[in-house]
Amino acid sequence: MTDPLRLGIAGLGTVGAGVVKIVQRKANLLAMRSGRPVVITAVSARTRDKDRGVRLGEYAWEDDPVVLARRDDVDLFVELMGGSDGPAKAATEAAIAAGKDVVTANKAMLAIHGQDLAATAEAAGVALRFEAAVAGGIPVIKSLTEGLSGNEITRVMGVMNGTCNYILTRMQSAGLSYDAVFREAHELGYLEADPTLDVGGIDAGHKLALLSAIAFGTEVDFAGVQLEGIERIASADIEQAADMGFRIKLLGVAQMTGRGLEQRMSPCLVPADSPLGQLEGGTNMVVLEGDAVGQIVLRGAGAGEGPTASAVMSDVMDIARGIRVSTFGQPAGSLTRPTPAGTATPAPYYLRMALQDKPGALAKVATALGEAGVSIDRMRQYQHSHETTAPVLIVTHKTTREALDKALAGIAGTGVADGRPVAIRIEAV
Amino acid sequence: MTDPLRLGIAGLGTVGAGVVKIVQRKANLLAMRSGRPVVITAVSARTRDKDRGVRLGEYAWEDDPVVLARRDDVDLFVELMGGSDGPAKAATEAAIAAGKDVVTANKAMLAIHGQDLAATAEAAGVALRFEAAVAGGIPVIKSLTEGLSGNEITRVMGVMNGTCNYILTRMQSAGLSYDAVFREAHELGYLEADPTLDVGGIDAGHKLALLSAIAFGTEVDFAGVQLEGIERIASADIEQAADMGFRIKLLGVAQMTGRGLEQRMSPCLVPADSPLGQLEGGTNMVVLEGDAVGQIVLRGAGAGEGPTASAVMSDVMDIARGIRVSTFGQPAGSLTRPTPAGTATPAPYYLRMALQDKPGALAKVATALGEAGVSIDRMRQYQHSHETTAPVLIVTHKTTREALDKALAGIAGTGVADGRPVAIRIEAV
Repeated sequence: MTDPLRLGIAGLGTVGAGVVKIVQRKANLLAMRSGRPVVITAVSARTRDKDRGVRLGEYAWEDDPVVLARRDDVDLFVELMGGSDGPAKAATEAAIAAGKDVVTANKAMLAIHGQDLAATAEAAGVALRFEAAVAGGIPVIKSLTEGLSGNEITRVMGVMNGTCNYILTRMQSAGLSYDAVFREAHELGYLEADPTLDVGGIDAGHKLALLSAIAFGTEVDFAGVQLEGIERIASADIEQAADMGFRIKLLGVAQMTGRGLEQRMSPCLVPADSPLGQLEGGTNMVVLEGDAVGQIVLRGAGAGEGPTASAVMSDVMDIARGIRVSTFGQPAGSLTRPTPAGTATPAPYYLRMALQDKPGALAKVATALGEAGVSIDRMRQYQHSHETTAPVLIVTHKTTREALDKALAGIAGTGVADGRPVAIRIEAV
Repeated sequence: MTDPLRLGIAGLGTVGAGVVKIVQRKANLLAMRSGRPVVITAVSARTRDKDRGVRLGEYAWEDDPVVLARRDDVDLFVELMGGSDGPAKAATEAAIAAGKDVVTANKAMLAIHGQDLAATAEAAGVALRFEAAVAGGIPVIKSLTEGLSGNEITRVMGVMNGTCNYILTRMQSAGLSYDAVFREAHELGYLEADPTLDVGGIDAGHKLALLSAIAFGTEVDFAGVQLEGIERIASADIEQAADMGFRIKLLGVAQMTGRGLEQRMSPCLVPADSPLGQLEGGTNMVVLEGDAVGQIVLRGAGAGEGPTASAVMSDVMDIARGIRVSTFGQPAGSLTRPTPAGTATPAPYYLRMALQDKPGALAKVATALGEAGVSIDRMRQYQHSHETTAPVLIVTHKTTREALDKALAGIAGTGVADGRPVAIRIEAV
């Protein structure tokens, strides 16, 4: 048995308390597996007097996480405060400067400052690991960085925001509107303080940017992620997509193309019977594709105390075991700066529009599509009921987004469709 | 850049050739990721003159894998010959004795001799790793050993023999008999030279025994796996299970119980809409359950050149990166000897029997079940057609295997059922 690994934990919310519980309750198991005791020496949080359901009295307390990060009796700084800048970043930098290894669950900080922090950690000869930042308990960073290290990665996909997946699957199962389910999710405490982080796709976009960097050996480029949230998804789309054998998911896709690095986080249609299509509620799923391994699908809880603490402990145990891997799987200096692909890889699209009940209306739509070079795979016109417009659904053949936009403009020009048609990409999974 | 990692590869079948291709074609990527060149210096196989689709002329050739394993210019011995004993074991032992790290894809060798080999490797201070031995390209050993190292593992399940899953799903989709699909699989080259290894559940049982050791910190105990193959599964069971919302899978389950370590590899019914139920063809799936992380599901190709070579390379790259983890996740000497659970955890069962067309026949069956303490959840009697017996299906409530066997004996005693009733466990997944 060698020296203990001494943790300093900053941030004692749900995840922090979960980590403390694991370290306290499984001391023997952790020591057996890593070959050395794993202990906590100091903790820090915004408020000291709060019942967190764990014993903290035996640990030194620091009000300032930066001071915690520099303590002599801390070998590994565990950053669980969150926020891309502010105390999290200051304390992480302080820990690195003081020669401490760092484990963080902070996707926002790494998506924005990951390149700099990784380079700094590398120069200081310390580890900076972040399994808990992506897809909760799923060991996706480890699988991609180490498990598939003999592969050229061809594509990474994922449903990585449980809240969005909860909203979309609940809209479908309960037949409720987006607004109704959004309120419900808010009441259940599923949403971030700023809900845009969830429903706007930002949180999931951060995670995608981190996976891209590892997969393609590129600098983290969150600004290069084409973001679209789920706010505009209507019940009608969910219902009618289902009717055509699809589900709507907030899906992240990253792939290296001849046009540069394509990173998208947006609502997509996927086949209802695919693993991604079958994903219900708050569960996360990541799909990794490599030239040797083919397709690997990983599924598990994307958030919550236990799963996220499990991921933090995976990094902690790696460090206890002496496992040292570059933050993004190769030296930070060798990551290349990606050129964002300006446009998305061609795909089929799902279109929904309200067509006026006039003779020749459908022909005009078909003509507009044809003139833009967009061909129709399937089409359904629904009953008019008592409206003066009829819902029309179209599934196109594979097309570029540019051609599609031209077609949508053409359709608008005919004056036979009310409002703006809905267009959602259909992803081949 | 430090010294290259020099591989000696014994066994140049599909997987061996796949590993050679990756090392040759991705030299830059591997060096970038691991921080050092990964090269091959020597190879060995049964026959030298054979076109394997890869350049081998630049490597030293050894007829004897034991000699290869001891070569001074080999740092890491890659064992891809297979077979639990014979040359594979001799060469592995020689490599360990010579102070070389070892990577193997050999589930049979590790299932039988894993404990001894791990202890020997540990005493010699070398690594012995086996990602490719379980579930092909899926990084399941890494996920369990490292990714979930902060968890107490509660259960491990898996469909880990692609051939069996192919046979079972093909029987369902094509409505063919076991014998017909078995012949088909044989012609397609899907079966091992000794098909019992596949259809008898032995191969999958080896894999389960390896996962159990890591999950529960126990010595590998293949002899403790309750094995049952798929040879007796009839088309009728597949059809009628489907009719009741189930699929039949050759499912491995390992869990620590109050009665000891339960390890089963046997045909089970699982819900058709569960991830395991939806698994088609040759794909593998492993389900890992931990007290913190909940349930993690991993899915991917379980065999084939690319996926298996990808798993071998994962271990090779770990060693190139200096990652050293005990073979079964903790020191070999700390693994406890498991007591096999004599009996399986209670579960519902599916029963199928041919009931004679006599008044009171069904009542006699129900009585026999009741007397054994087995209660009925659902029952279906199918049309008689032109037979003198009618198929009857019963889904029981949760019961012990002992009570069920008593019930089956009771049913036999009534004389109203032709032949022996079929009984298949329904696993809660």
